[in-house]
Amino acid sequence: MARGIDEFDLIRRYFAPLTNGEPGALGLRDDAAWIRPDSGMELVVSADAIVSGVHFPTSTKPADVARRALRVNLSDIAAKGARPCCYTLALQLPDTVDEDWAAAFVSGLAGDQETYGVFLLGGDTTRTPGPLSLSINIFGQAIENKMIKRSSAGVDDDVYVSGTIGDAALGLASIMGDLAVDDAEDRAFLEGRFLQPEPRVSLGPALVGTAAASADVSDGLVADLGHICAASGVSAEIQQHRVPFSGAARRVVTDSQPLWTKLLTGGDDYEIVFTAPASARDRVISIASATGVSIMRIGRTIPVTDGIPAVSVRDETDNIVEAGFGGYRHFAGDVTRG
Amino acid sequence: MARGIDEFDLIRRYFAPLTNGEPGALGLRDDAAWIRPDSGMELVVSADAIVSGVHFPTSTKPADVARRALRVNLSDIAAKGARPCCYTLALQLPDTVDEDWAAAFVSGLAGDQETYGVFLLGGDTTRTPGPLSLSINIFGQAIENKMIKRSSAGVDDDVYVSGTIGDAALGLASIMGDLAVDDAEDRAFLEGRFLQPEPRVSLGPALVGTAAASADVSDGLVADLGHICAASGVSAEIQQHRVPFSGAARRVVTDSQPLWTKLLTGGDDYEIVFTAPASARDRVISIASATGVSIMRIGRTIPVTDGIPAVSVRDETDNIVEAGFGGYRHFAGDVTRG
Repeated sequence: MARGIDEFDLIRRYFAPLTNGEPGALGLRDDAAWIRPDSGMELVVSADAIVSGVHFPTSTKPADVARRALRVNLSDIAAKGARPCCYTLALQLPDTVDEDWAAAFVSGLAGDQETYGVFLLGGDTTRTPGPLSLSINIFGQAIENKMIKRSSAGVDDDVYVSGTIGDAALGLASIMGDLAVDDAEDRAFLEGRFLQPEPRVSLGPALVGTAAASADVSDGLVADLGHICAASGVSAEIQQHRVPFSGAARRVVTDSQPLWTKLLTGGDDYEIVFTAPASARDRVISIASATGVSIMRIGRTIPVTDGIPAVSVRDETDNIVEAGFGGYRHFAGDVTRG
Repeated sequence: MARGIDEFDLIRRYFAPLTNGEPGALGLRDDAAWIRPDSGMELVVSADAIVSGVHFPTSTKPADVARRALRVNLSDIAAKGARPCCYTLALQLPDTVDEDWAAAFVSGLAGDQETYGVFLLGGDTTRTPGPLSLSINIFGQAIENKMIKRSSAGVDDDVYVSGTIGDAALGLASIMGDLAVDDAEDRAFLEGRFLQPEPRVSLGPALVGTAAASADVSDGLVADLGHICAASGVSAEIQQHRVPFSGAARRVVTDSQPLWTKLLTGGDDYEIVFTAPASARDRVISIASATGVSIMRIGRTIPVTDGIPAVSVRDETDNIVEAGFGGYRHFAGDVTRG
């Protein structure tokens, strides 16, 4: 194990308190944990692993690593219309990790556990000769048969997205020294959007019964809408000028179309992209108001042509400025291999 | 991603078929999966990660890596008295992994899925600049409130263990070139016990209502019985001459006490160590007979002295030849750091 700390100490002193005394976690002192969904509910499970140097810069602070790992998973649960309850954590630690690191990492988890109302159900820690990595399985509860899938979009649905798109891609570029953001406030905002994404945990469950299909924006708006299209057998058109960009993003990007494209495809937004029939427009407005999350209608779904579900982005003169497909290949947040 | 294969291809062509068309897995085409325990049942969850060069030799064949990863997790579920149903897999792949590797790895999983009646529920694949690693979360079903815990051993319980102990430790030593096993058949048997452990999936559920406390033997017999003792607030004494050793192990170890100790503490057996009150002896014999798994009574639990739950191993002259504690520090199967 890591310097000056062994596996059992790490679990007992740092991780066991994160179970919040929930009985199913058995204080992390057993081979397994138990979990029971409430009556009428099903468990929603999502698994996401992040690796240092691949999914986040190696310089990322331990508390930010913790928050990021938890939030990208919370985002998956939210996008399915479920409420998160707990998670397991498999940690692979290199020898460079010491007790200070562990303490800061755990404080990041503890803060987010309180923010999002989740607890640690179980896990595993092991050493690795490779980079630090974390694999989280997160559990949420959805009303039985009401989980919002990717595969249930119809033709002529409206396409919506929450929040703003592209900030995290700019933030990552700034962190990596690939993009100069002169204004300190804009830089802090954009980098914060990468380091501490805000999973839409209140919006997701509010969309149950209104959204037809939904996904979180992790691979990029075009790619994730593409996943919905591929799973549903539809295509989609979105208007670039309707996509919500933050003031900071607009100031940085100005009129560079390559940078606009980076926003649309960059990933790591952890917003929710969803479709809903036109008859649901008033309900969507009410949901935005009730949850305090901005929601923008950015396009619509259309029938598939040429047999391949696809996403087209059009500019104000109706030119296609970006296109993606359901099997869109993009490695989100890959900071080491470009 | 790895040479000649990308993440989406890997999932679609190799991993999606492992869902066996189960509806909750959504064909691995969604952000999440769903799972519902049967009426009156609770879900039992266990998480275990294994890293190449740490938990198995880097030379291990891909199908053996797959089987080992799945079986160490199945063993946790079995030890809790639960029946396994499905698992998630987070794979971290170095660039050296190619399509042949993926095909062989998946065939190992597919074979074991059939053997053990489980399916792939979800997962995540990512590249890593480090070693190959796999993180599995496995799900089983146990009757509500009947999961067999570590913490429920009483004083004066009998202590039992299934199968034989120490074969895997000798097998690993042979694989690593640290131990010469001259007889080819013995060598194949011992190495096979390391590479392809046999989780006690029928024995575990049969112990519900009979075993007081239970754990699987992954860290080593002394350490895992120590975990039961620590969680239950008892100590235990076991008789070395009652611990079941295989013919192959006896032939290799002969009269070397250090090697006997290696068997008792070596780990990776994936047998079940459990306690039961003396009144259950007939039932334990019936369970062994019904499941076809040998079970040996090897000792008993005793009150804690000096405030520290401990395990003592005595030889036939009643000398203590090995002792361990609940917080016993041992890194099972650590093949790179000794």
